[in-house]
Amino acid sequence: MNETILEKTEGRVSYHDSVEEMLKRIREDGMSNVFDRWTSQEKIRCKFCLEGLSCQLCSQGPCRISEKTGQTKGVCGIGPDAMAMRNFLLKNIMGAGTYSHHAYEAFRTLQATAEGKTPFKIKDVDKLKWMCEKVGIDTNQDINDMAIELAILLEDQQRIGVEEQNIMVEAFAPRKRKELWRKLGIYPAGTVHEEQNCVASCLTNVDGSHVSLAMKALRLGIATIYNTQIGLEMVQDILFGTPMPHEVNMDLGIMDPEYINVVFNGHQPWAGAATIEKARSKEVQDRAKAAGAKGLRIIGSIETGQELLQRFEMDDVFVGHMGNWLTIEPLLATGTVDVMAMEENCSPPAIDMYAEKYQVTLVSVSTIIDLPGLQHKIPYDPSEVDNMADRLIELAIENFKKRKDKITPVVPKITQKAIAGFSTEAVLKALGGKLDPLVDVIAAGKIKGVVALANCSTLRNGPQDWNTINLTKELIKKDILVVAGGCGNHALEVAGLCTLAAANEIAGEGLREVCNLLKMPPVLSFGTCTDTGRISMLVSALADHLDVDVSDLPIAVTAPEWMEQKATIDGIFALAYGAYTHLSPTPFMTGAPQLVELLTVKAEDVTGGKIALGDDPIEVANNIEAHILKKRKGLNLK
Amino acid sequence: MNETILEKTEGRVSYHDSVEEMLKRIREDGMSNVFDRWTSQEKIRCKFCLEGLSCQLCSQGPCRISEKTGQTKGVCGIGPDAMAMRNFLLKNIMGAGTYSHHAYEAFRTLQATAEGKTPFKIKDVDKLKWMCEKVGIDTNQDINDMAIELAILLEDQQRIGVEEQNIMVEAFAPRKRKELWRKLGIYPAGTVHEEQNCVASCLTNVDGSHVSLAMKALRLGIATIYNTQIGLEMVQDILFGTPMPHEVNMDLGIMDPEYINVVFNGHQPWAGAATIEKARSKEVQDRAKAAGAKGLRIIGSIETGQELLQRFEMDDVFVGHMGNWLTIEPLLATGTVDVMAMEENCSPPAIDMYAEKYQVTLVSVSTIIDLPGLQHKIPYDPSEVDNMADRLIELAIENFKKRKDKITPVVPKITQKAIAGFSTEAVLKALGGKLDPLVDVIAAGKIKGVVALANCSTLRNGPQDWNTINLTKELIKKDILVVAGGCGNHALEVAGLCTLAAANEIAGEGLREVCNLLKMPPVLSFGTCTDTGRISMLVSALADHLDVDVSDLPIAVTAPEWMEQKATIDGIFALAYGAYTHLSPTPFMTGAPQLVELLTVKAEDVTGGKIALGDDPIEVANNIEAHILKKRKGLNLK
Repeated sequence: MNETILEKTEGRVSYHDSVEEMLKRIREDGMSNVFDRWTSQEKIRCKFCLEGLSCQLCSQGPCRISEKTGQTKGVCGIGPDAMAMRNFLLKNIMGAGTYSHHAYEAFRTLQATAEGKTPFKIKDVDKLKWMCEKVGIDTNQDINDMAIELAILLEDQQRIGVEEQNIMVEAFAPRKRKELWRKLGIYPAGTVHEEQNCVASCLTNVDGSHVSLAMKALRLGIATIYNTQIGLEMVQDILFGTPMPHEVNMDLGIMDPEYINVVFNGHQPWAGAATIEKARSKEVQDRAKAAGAKGLRIIGSIETGQELLQRFEMDDVFVGHMGNWLTIEPLLATGTVDVMAMEENCSPPAIDMYAEKYQVTLVSVSTIIDLPGLQHKIPYDPSEVDNMADRLIELAIENFKKRKDKITPVVPKITQKAIAGFSTEAVLKALGGKLDPLVDVIAAGKIKGVVALANCSTLRNGPQDWNTINLTKELIKKDILVVAGGCGNHALEVAGLCTLAAANEIAGEGLREVCNLLKMPPVLSFGTCTDTGRISMLVSALADHLDVDVSDLPIAVTAPEWMEQKATIDGIFALAYGAYTHLSPTPFMTGAPQLVELLTVKAEDVTGGKIALGDDPIEVANNIEAHILKKRKGLNLK
Repeated sequence: MNETILEKTEGRVSYHDSVEEMLKRIREDGMSNVFDRWTSQEKIRCKFCLEGLSCQLCSQGPCRISEKTGQTKGVCGIGPDAMAMRNFLLKNIMGAGTYSHHAYEAFRTLQATAEGKTPFKIKDVDKLKWMCEKVGIDTNQDINDMAIELAILLEDQQRIGVEEQNIMVEAFAPRKRKELWRKLGIYPAGTVHEEQNCVASCLTNVDGSHVSLAMKALRLGIATIYNTQIGLEMVQDILFGTPMPHEVNMDLGIMDPEYINVVFNGHQPWAGAATIEKARSKEVQDRAKAAGAKGLRIIGSIETGQELLQRFEMDDVFVGHMGNWLTIEPLLATGTVDVMAMEENCSPPAIDMYAEKYQVTLVSVSTIIDLPGLQHKIPYDPSEVDNMADRLIELAIENFKKRKDKITPVVPKITQKAIAGFSTEAVLKALGGKLDPLVDVIAAGKIKGVVALANCSTLRNGPQDWNTINLTKELIKKDILVVAGGCGNHALEVAGLCTLAAANEIAGEGLREVCNLLKMPPVLSFGTCTDTGRISMLVSALADHLDVDVSDLPIAVTAPEWMEQKATIDGIFALAYGAYTHLSPTPFMTGAPQLVELLTVKAEDVTGGKIALGDDPIEVANNIEAHILKKRKGLNLK
């Protein structure tokens, strides 16, 4: 990182003052925490693992590659480049598998809803019809029949083999990309099929070529976006409404200990959505009051929080979003949480000690979540979601009774407003129904280009969210519009960048003018990491509108604090999509020179995209700007 | 290992003299090889990785757990037991994914064959009808229609979610197990569904409980055997014939440099089966002779070789099987191989240097295989398999022209006979169509029990195949019948244990008597690691026949040299199946005491099975015998 930024990080573990404040309590209470564990692990890091030169796959291992001492290959014969790429592909598979798990739950929820088995309704009928038209389903039929047909088709599209038609790629990928992907042999089958092909390729003694493994990653990335993400996001829109911009509350200051607080953490909105609706009833609020609370509230945490935030208005019941995963331990330490309901993303495995210390009831609401000390498991089943919500409310009321006299709450007095809920539809609406105004402001140079930011939050390249926020500030200063998804998006919302004020205080002149004209922030909150697909829909529309390829557009992608495996597959998709794709921290592959060259240099001749590395936000912003200016020149824009 | 055995291994890298002989040439030629790379890697092994206490999944890592220096958890908070189990589950997923990839290819091959798109015929119509009856398909229809319906049903059964009926488990699992699995919550959906659920569970911050992760492994193991392996093996029987015992030739002595030699290596029989049929034509043999060869021959290598061996008789064209994966480099060094056609298992990544030195044409015949320096890729497509065979023959003839005057062949003069091709049907046939005679000889104590051996070959616990062969010798000495599958099976065939002579020379008195009576070897060659499912069918039949649970039977499972990830999922299935399951080498989990206790002790109270560790064949055989005697006692057998 740049020195001026490093200076500011002195002694800090997070960009956010609320987290810093809570960490005092956590440390005073002698609690193990992610920040101190990071410091402790730093002392015993393995250099081989950091460089991607360690393999533990088979019983002939663990192997390490060390050119210096003569171990240039693993026992089986694998070299450094293939070893590092195989390790990386395995992570990509994990990301793709998690997205496709999420999609599976979404599609069966849509079907169950259409069959009347859930408390949900099809909220956005227009979106349902639009999706059905896109994928060739007859829209002259009953809404519920249409929804069932769509749910089956979408799940089927996740699973198709090489002999079946990829309806999703055909319907949603940019014209020129499809041709290129066929030419390169990376036009995919369904996500699940590609996962299986990749996983079999990673077996010991199967695929030992880093180039072949990298091409498989690209195929998998394309399948993940089209055959999984776009379908699942559209289905969530159909069920809960297409996101439209509205004001929301962020940061730990939203917590009020006088209320019964149910937090939804993870990525999938099912239980949260059902509980919000239920908690808005007088009956539930009366029960909460009878237990001695002022009422019962729902709080969004990480990606689940953002899914809810995108589609549900704030009110007395749904009060906002706490931040991203590094804020979870601090949140629990506030002593205000009654139920922490968890599915999918970032349910950290050592929070049982927080639950005990600060009287929190931990509940898994998914088949995939478990952790030591977990006492309540209510695995998701669409037809049971109504009962799940009841049970969560009951558990929260019971917890509150124990918590209220036992735990002294500590809540940082910091709340931040943000505008959440952007979508392609919202952008088009703001633009008067057509893309031309956006094209015009880009052509005129008021907006130099667009950067999609999708990522997590990590301590590897600085304090929590430091890189994400500083890079974004640098970009908007340069009149580059940022479209954000994932846990990095929550960081930007908490940091106040998703506001019109940020346009006036930080953005460059051109971007500021556009923001004020359209009443939009310089950072558009586009949702979660799953919305990488949604963001790509906007970019694809732009490419097709201009009849150019994605790689010709003045755009870039950045993941300035990727942490887990869903981020890596999003990054790989961006590469296949033809985007300049910045990743920080550097993935574990620095010991694999041919692989690094392939991804950061040679890839550009293949997909038109490339991976860019770098941990200094100012330098990264300059590089992104240079790329955008080069692309503008290519399009004959000034 | 026991001292008397260790003594014999002095200076050796393999049990097999043929491999030892070839290694001299390999070393003289200065070639990197798996045996010397093993020795070199031994100098820089990572203790954390060996103990399962290293994690490289997210950018906050790589983490290591060290109780001594205070790093008791990873940065995320994961503890040693969950970290080691998650690492292990990821390997299980890789194994399951590879099996389900194989099954996908099998099912589409059956369908394409029924549609007349391949050169294959439905060879075993009775098996087709039997399978259709088992899974509820109408057998009063055209053979091809029936086959298509079966192919579709089987692929669908790989993919089913939690809401669909698991037809395969219902049809093939032992009665009492199904009840238990439901009770334990490990009754599975389809393999692909379980893979996805497991892969999502392994994501950073998702499942942090070693118990939950272990239960998911069990579910995945059950799905792998029933929803994948059994279907795929039965389909291979339908296409190429159900295995029946017959004599075959093993070891490197089968290679003749005067012939054009096409080797099929991997696990899937498609290209090999098509090429054998084609090579048996006068036209191909004439072309070979015209090129200056005595003819063109097909050689089986590792699992592909065994798949072919099980179902195709030896003749002048298909001449035998070379051994398992550690014999591949020695095979190539004989200077007799013209085409090495590779798919799936064990196509080692550094054999391009052998191809160059000894004039071999390497060809990938699968989407999953690649390696540096590979020049020919003919990815499998059922409707193209006829052309694939033509192309392989062409490439082999071209290679022979270059090889014949350039390379001095070195072929060890060692050939071994074996009886291959056992199956449940073959056993029943030998027993006169019913299980009672087998039950009788077990009840009478002539056979004390049955051990299923399924595994690979590794250098971690001694020279190649040393443990596998010595353990097997100890078991048959104790009147324990060994049923073998996988690369360990090839080891036993090469070592001469799949012969009637072995019964007379090595087996105990009771087993010897039964072997002579039934004219069968003391080690029944049951095929490949995929035939774990086939072996389980025999055991399930026995359990249901006696109306007892699998865990009550005097049986055990051993993988005395597991190497890669397919072996780990077979082992995990055996645990779910209720079997005493010996694994050597010890998986990377010795730093996870609770996990080790769960798998080696507590599991017995859950599934009735448990993992047994140990690297000394004599001690392991004694422990297995003790277990079998305990189970005999439980059944009131003397």
